[in-house]
Amino acid sequence: MAFKATILTLYPDMFPGPLGQSLSGRALDKGLWQLETSQIRDFATDKHRSVDDTPAGGGAGMVLRADILAKAIDAAAPADDPRPRLLMSPRGLPFTQKRAHELAEGPGAIIVCGRFEGIDQRVIDARNLEEVSIGDYILSGGEIGAITLLDAIIRLIPGVMGNMESADTESFETGLLEHPHYTRPAEFEGLTIPEVLTSGNHKKIHEWRMSESEKLTRDRRPDLWHAYMADEDDVD
Amino acid sequence: MAFKATILTLYPDMFPGPLGQSLSGRALDKGLWQLETSQIRDFATDKHRSVDDTPAGGGAGMVLRADILAKAIDAAAPADDPRPRLLMSPRGLPFTQKRAHELAEGPGAIIVCGRFEGIDQRVIDARNLEEVSIGDYILSGGEIGAITLLDAIIRLIPGVMGNMESADTESFETGLLEHPHYTRPAEFEGLTIPEVLTSGNHKKIHEWRMSESEKLTRDRRPDLWHAYMADEDDVD
Repeated sequence: MAFKATILTLYPDMFPGPLGQSLSGRALDKGLWQLETSQIRDFATDKHRSVDDTPAGGGAGMVLRADILAKAIDAAAPADDPRPRLLMSPRGLPFTQKRAHELAEGPGAIIVCGRFEGIDQRVIDARNLEEVSIGDYILSGGEIGAITLLDAIIRLIPGVMGNMESADTESFETGLLEHPHYTRPAEFEGLTIPEVLTSGNHKKIHEWRMSESEKLTRDRRPDLWHAYMADEDDVD
Repeated sequence: MAFKATILTLYPDMFPGPLGQSLSGRALDKGLWQLETSQIRDFATDKHRSVDDTPAGGGAGMVLRADILAKAIDAAAPADDPRPRLLMSPRGLPFTQKRAHELAEGPGAIIVCGRFEGIDQRVIDARNLEEVSIGDYILSGGEIGAITLLDAIIRLIPGVMGNMESADTESFETGLLEHPHYTRPAEFEGLTIPEVLTSGNHKKIHEWRMSESEKLTRDRRPDLWHAYMADEDDVD
């Protein structure tokens, strides 16, 4: 059974959006993953089809109602649906490459896209929503976060990437940032390709790439570097 | 002069994509920001319009050529274009809410979307590209990263958000994750709204929200919590 994403949103027309093209678009056409959207507004009960209300305790913005979102979730996914229920939210645990792998190996995901100031905490609790954040910045809503999350997952689904697009040496797969790349022409505006890369000496090429990866990670991402060194220590 | 984004990509049809709707779409229609795309492939020189070649030193994947991308950059932005030149890349510095504010206050951005295994390091060096990462995961290309980055920036451009959508209390603006939200109905599946929020006591409401923010940040994001406490210490 293919990976199935069900998106609960007020903007279903944003999907598949960029996911309808390139790698994920071809995979969607081939049936390697499935996408369905559910319009939360269809579960509103008043004549204005309103889904939000003012925050209890006051403050700016509007809050998505628990009762309406709960009905949308229940309609999209019965209680025995094995898929994780994700809520795109800056308050969530950071999404990582490791989590992308876990999700890609599973049956899919139900993804709730928040809008407005936030959503009522009671539906997060009652429907066991897992808050996921794609980064430490604020988006206009959860939709673009969901697209980002799905793009990272879809490329890891078996059959989506060809051998030519192997993921093994990429940033985060090894715990290090990836080394620099070079290709033809041999000279560009007076800049040449590092000699070792054209030496044909595979051992030296590997050592150079590893050393560049380590240097880059140490300089740019001391947080990743410390985690990497701690892992190395565990192995010893 | 409005914020202007110029996107260099092999998939111009991905834009504006989700940015054409909702908050950013209305702002685009109103001229509060501008978007243009440049097809990198238009700068290829051979009859196959190829833009990539095999990596020097061997390995999987293909590398975007320095000479072709440099021509695309030079055509999109003369040397005196004041806009920062960003390259979406998992090797970049993490994009943050602070950086979103800085970019929203500037003239715009030139955004290069990588594809394949990577791009030739020499064009990064020669054209002074600033590598930016939206998170510690791998996407199929830079396009969805660029959409994410722009969504975070656009909502901060003056005039884009109304007062009702004020950003002041959101996650990351204060250094803390945001407190839980509640709205009507007063009871949902037996769950009630915390009493303090309906007390009308604004001081107590503020204290409760602050305490919930602190608890959430400490539990979920010890990294943010430590940074927040270090900042507090500096103030003392």
